[in-house]
Amino acid sequence: MMMKVVLLCVLAATLAFTIGILLGHFAIDKGSSVPDWVRDASRDVDEKIIKTFLDQLDTNQLRENLRELTKVPHMATTAGDEGTVQFLLKRWQDPNTGLDNAWREDYKVYLSFPNKSNPNKVSVVNPENAVLFAAREREKPYKPEQEDPDVAINAAKFGIVGLLVYTDPYEMNDGLVSESDTYPHSWYLPPTGVERGSYSIDFGDLLTPYLAAKDDTYRIPKEDITGIPPIPTQPIGFEDAERLICELDGDNAPDDWQGSLNCTYKLGGPGFKASSSFNNSNVHLDTFNTESLVNSANVMGVIRGSVEPDRYVIYGNHRDSWVHGAIDPSSGTAVMLEITRVLGKMVKEGKWRPRRSIIFGSWGAEEFGLIGSAEYTEEYFSKLSERTVAYINVDISVFANATLRASASPAAHGVLFTASKQVDAPGTTLSVYDNWLKYSNRTSPNYGIIPNVGFLTGAGSDYAAFMHYLGITSMDISYYYDRTKTKARIYPAYHTAYDTFDYASTYIDPGFTSHQAVARTAGNVLLRLADSLLLPFNCTDYAESLQRYLSEAVTTFESKLAAKGISMESLKKAVKLFSDTANKLDSLIRDSDLANETPLMVRQINDQLMLLDRAFLDPLAFPEQYGFRHVIWASRSSSVPTFPGLADAVEKAEGTGLKEDWDQAHKHLSIVTQAIAGAAHTLDNVI
Amino acid sequence: MMMKVVLLCVLAATLAFTIGILLGHFAIDKGSSVPDWVRDASRDVDEKIIKTFLDQLDTNQLRENLRELTKVPHMATTAGDEGTVQFLLKRWQDPNTGLDNAWREDYKVYLSFPNKSNPNKVSVVNPENAVLFAAREREKPYKPEQEDPDVAINAAKFGIVGLLVYTDPYEMNDGLVSESDTYPHSWYLPPTGVERGSYSIDFGDLLTPYLAAKDDTYRIPKEDITGIPPIPTQPIGFEDAERLICELDGDNAPDDWQGSLNCTYKLGGPGFKASSSFNNSNVHLDTFNTESLVNSANVMGVIRGSVEPDRYVIYGNHRDSWVHGAIDPSSGTAVMLEITRVLGKMVKEGKWRPRRSIIFGSWGAEEFGLIGSAEYTEEYFSKLSERTVAYINVDISVFANATLRASASPAAHGVLFTASKQVDAPGTTLSVYDNWLKYSNRTSPNYGIIPNVGFLTGAGSDYAAFMHYLGITSMDISYYYDRTKTKARIYPAYHTAYDTFDYASTYIDPGFTSHQAVARTAGNVLLRLADSLLLPFNCTDYAESLQRYLSEAVTTFESKLAAKGISMESLKKAVKLFSDTANKLDSLIRDSDLANETPLMVRQINDQLMLLDRAFLDPLAFPEQYGFRHVIWASRSSSVPTFPGLADAVEKAEGTGLKEDWDQAHKHLSIVTQAIAGAAHTLDNVI
Repeated sequence: MMMKVVLLCVLAATLAFTIGILLGHFAIDKGSSVPDWVRDASRDVDEKIIKTFLDQLDTNQLRENLRELTKVPHMATTAGDEGTVQFLLKRWQDPNTGLDNAWREDYKVYLSFPNKSNPNKVSVVNPENAVLFAAREREKPYKPEQEDPDVAINAAKFGIVGLLVYTDPYEMNDGLVSESDTYPHSWYLPPTGVERGSYSIDFGDLLTPYLAAKDDTYRIPKEDITGIPPIPTQPIGFEDAERLICELDGDNAPDDWQGSLNCTYKLGGPGFKASSSFNNSNVHLDTFNTESLVNSANVMGVIRGSVEPDRYVIYGNHRDSWVHGAIDPSSGTAVMLEITRVLGKMVKEGKWRPRRSIIFGSWGAEEFGLIGSAEYTEEYFSKLSERTVAYINVDISVFANATLRASASPAAHGVLFTASKQVDAPGTTLSVYDNWLKYSNRTSPNYGIIPNVGFLTGAGSDYAAFMHYLGITSMDISYYYDRTKTKARIYPAYHTAYDTFDYASTYIDPGFTSHQAVARTAGNVLLRLADSLLLPFNCTDYAESLQRYLSEAVTTFESKLAAKGISMESLKKAVKLFSDTANKLDSLIRDSDLANETPLMVRQINDQLMLLDRAFLDPLAFPEQYGFRHVIWASRSSSVPTFPGLADAVEKAEGTGLKEDWDQAHKHLSIVTQAIAGAAHTLDNVI
Repeated sequence: MMMKVVLLCVLAATLAFTIGILLGHFAIDKGSSVPDWVRDASRDVDEKIIKTFLDQLDTNQLRENLRELTKVPHMATTAGDEGTVQFLLKRWQDPNTGLDNAWREDYKVYLSFPNKSNPNKVSVVNPENAVLFAAREREKPYKPEQEDPDVAINAAKFGIVGLLVYTDPYEMNDGLVSESDTYPHSWYLPPTGVERGSYSIDFGDLLTPYLAAKDDTYRIPKEDITGIPPIPTQPIGFEDAERLICELDGDNAPDDWQGSLNCTYKLGGPGFKASSSFNNSNVHLDTFNTESLVNSANVMGVIRGSVEPDRYVIYGNHRDSWVHGAIDPSSGTAVMLEITRVLGKMVKEGKWRPRRSIIFGSWGAEEFGLIGSAEYTEEYFSKLSERTVAYINVDISVFANATLRASASPAAHGVLFTASKQVDAPGTTLSVYDNWLKYSNRTSPNYGIIPNVGFLTGAGSDYAAFMHYLGITSMDISYYYDRTKTKARIYPAYHTAYDTFDYASTYIDPGFTSHQAVARTAGNVLLRLADSLLLPFNCTDYAESLQRYLSEAVTTFESKLAAKGISMESLKKAVKLFSDTANKLDSLIRDSDLANETPLMVRQINDQLMLLDRAFLDPLAFPEQYGFRHVIWASRSSSVPTFPGLADAVEKAEGTGLKEDWDQAHKHLSIVTQAIAGAAHTLDNVI
């Protein structure tokens, strides 16, 4: 009995001991338990959140956004533009679907406008001063939108004095010229459609290069303005152009100058034909444009990052149009607003907050030379340089509804592929990625056949200041043409009074499914950049692009340089070094368990990736070209797809044969070599 | 009995339960326990480590370092220089007291040297071509060091053709001229002492601006070299100078041209006096310098950081001298080697590893124009810009033994004070800080009376490329004169053959206690920069400096600018914004418990502090001045201690009265305004 009691007692004690251990271990919170931020800091992008986000992007919302944005013409700094500013602010400050914060930033910029009460005139005037012909001052109205009093034809800015430009139906209408073949009967440009535009090759406000255009900022004298044509330029429709061109005398123009107007194009040396009623008459161009300092606003909105608020993913699009601008730029603004609606709602409902901060920018005065985005980068240069992970540009979101098109820094090609694989291509059973592959592809030594992503070598939209001036990894995304179906240079209503909601919803994207595909692809890229633990940038893809450029440079220029005693060996070594260090960093990433690494180690790698494009900046490399500092992607005159400074300098030297020009070629070779080697050092072991 | 047994049993079970709970809670590791890196990431600087470090810095080691470094002349790129390269490498690769890694980096730089077998000649030659007088080709030997065959008098480089320079005993010897009053009987300059030097105002290799001077780097044509005087210049001793000056005829030279030579200085317009044996004779200057591309090495060494290896604290000093260079620069190299010995030992013994990485640089060819450090910053521009926390320069460590002297970016003033308070001032009962306060102080609106720290506005030593070109928070530290005891411009043996170990250990710092005080102060600063959880930089101190500069600018220039319609209001607003955001960041820091914050939050603030000086860079602000990009501290011609671009532009405009020059003043006002506002944005809430 006693034994039993003792046994029971030992059993009870053992049980109590065990329970005690279990309670002690699991039930009592250790004072030194893992802080919450350890988990937060290592959290990766959530695929469920991505799916939820993609599902909520809605074609009806996109349509209504576009309708609202295109009610009136909203050329930069006009009342219509201010209306869109207010609309954007209202949306981004909405308590249920808005962002954490939204505000406007104003700049005082120098623009040239037509005079509404005294429009520019193109006329044919005979020796007795009788007007034999006058070009239209407005496009022919087919819909109420064209009757808006703000449908003025804006001449290309500044110095308008001698050039008439028109859009030939050959390059825009697949040759069609008659009214019955064009809008509103098809997507083609009506005979009276006038393509407006700016001819500036610089970007940013013309009077304040490198300085944000504030009230009392120093402004250069107007006569020192660079980057615009020295003679006046006035756009006209092809109906008016036909009247002038088909009356011209002289030798036949070259074959590749011939277009689809109903005559043989002549050079017009002696003037109009003797048989023409215009014979002995002159063409008069009277311009009454006025230049003024006007207020242009950017609208900014942010979602604060939870873990790394000091890292920015910027998504932007301009807001100003030439006329109603349904496609350019409102198709992009409609997409941006739909993305912010869904993200804003998730934030307001407490369902999500990004790891990094997201900044949305609705830029002003893009059509006059990328002004809003350029002023923004000038004003916040340091902050943006230090902290910006990437810039996503969606300007015209839908040119046409066939396929995705993207241009980007090579670092971002991978994330474009990942995102586009998760989105359905409208009108197909394929993903956006697989559909894209059908329309445009190339063979990569690393991956085989992949979609062809362009490089951002020019200044075609607001990515310019981010990519070229700040060296921020940028990308430009849209939906695009089936090139087998049209030769149109761009959608035919581009920059005319026919680029309206009616045009866009009838001919470009009736179901708004292409808008949705772009919203999903760009939005997916945005979320991945904002939420991924490891930035989805690939430095070995960058190495591949440098190798392509090197290979072109060697093929085209090596023997020419060698003949002048200039060796390309150091450049080859630099590219090799870049590839080697990129591979090394890639291996480090592959071999690391980043979710269990210290957040500072992850940040270190992310900083290497974030700053990779920055390492290619050289503010003195292209002293003649405003804002172009990225020695790999700067704009280039040469047709050889390679390092721009080198290509242009060698071609110039070949032309002149001058020692000093070959010296410049050597200098550009050294500049690009040092930039690539310097970038390679940033990818190497940090110490 | 049974009750007792049951009671005992309950007691045993209770005890077992309790022990179980305790074991369960404390003895069993929870799977989700705090990772080690959480503790490491929040660790702050360890004052015990600092004390240990300071205690181990040894005067005997410093003396022996200096003896070893000064055995032979080691002018840049000579065999003597290569000897010091090997010595540095041996020390930094020592298995017991060396660094983690050490290596050399070579550049091919363009230097001018005297021809040993055909030295430059200064002579007086009469009309019959008889040499009446010849200046000495070497200094008079008093000790074996002066008999070293490498004691050649190096003419200032390039274009030597017309100027003789000498050091007047008035400015260097407190007026003493006789051999018996000078070295080796005192620290004063002997009559035959020749002060060598470079007259370049640019920095870096002259043929490869902005490019690291590698084998096949593009080199500008020699005729395009800028930044050096257009006429030949040859230094001579004051004994020889006296022979020439005291024989001159003509009007008396102005009072402030008169010196301590034993005659009235004449302007010499008509040549030599009629009574002089040199009458009708000419002075001949024959220079045989040769320029060549030669190899110059930096020696680099690193200690890898444990927590933030991608953050660098750089400590540097040049290695090359004009002759033996005991004070310039070997006193600094001796200090650097003693710091690395003690730190290296602590690392090798496993007792310490810094939070951030430490890079040591022994720069080559400083005397020819800060070449080694400039080439290094050109080659590694991106990596260094992204990651460098601070640069500490200790060139001449001990000019004299009275007091600390320091110049620094305002961000670093605080850490200099903290460090110097912990070091004893040699020969006093005071701390280095309190002793310093006695010699040089100012009244700060924030702190009251504090030591006066200079600004790094010029290019006097290797900090130039770091501060001005890279925008890295830099400082320059040394021990200095009691200005009540001597008017000497600098220690009298400076750049002569008398700057030897004997001179240094007899007259400058016999007990090497001033060397030790500098090693302790600079080393303490280094450790605090490397180990502090929060970078010891102060943005409100920066604001105070900007306010001082603004106040000077307003006092001196506001009415002049207003008269031209240029307002300073935006500049005032920018400085106010900077002060406000600096205060805000300071409050955030004060109110945060950083040791318990997420490492990414601490990193965010540290990045704001680290990149503060970077935010003032503008690569286009001073197109005429190589490498000067920091718009606050760039070199300035104006004597007004304020924003250099503004001051120089206003003074130029006042001189010429030209509209275009007032435009430039306005432009510089906008540049500095934008830079300060931009920097303020980086201190503001990150989003």
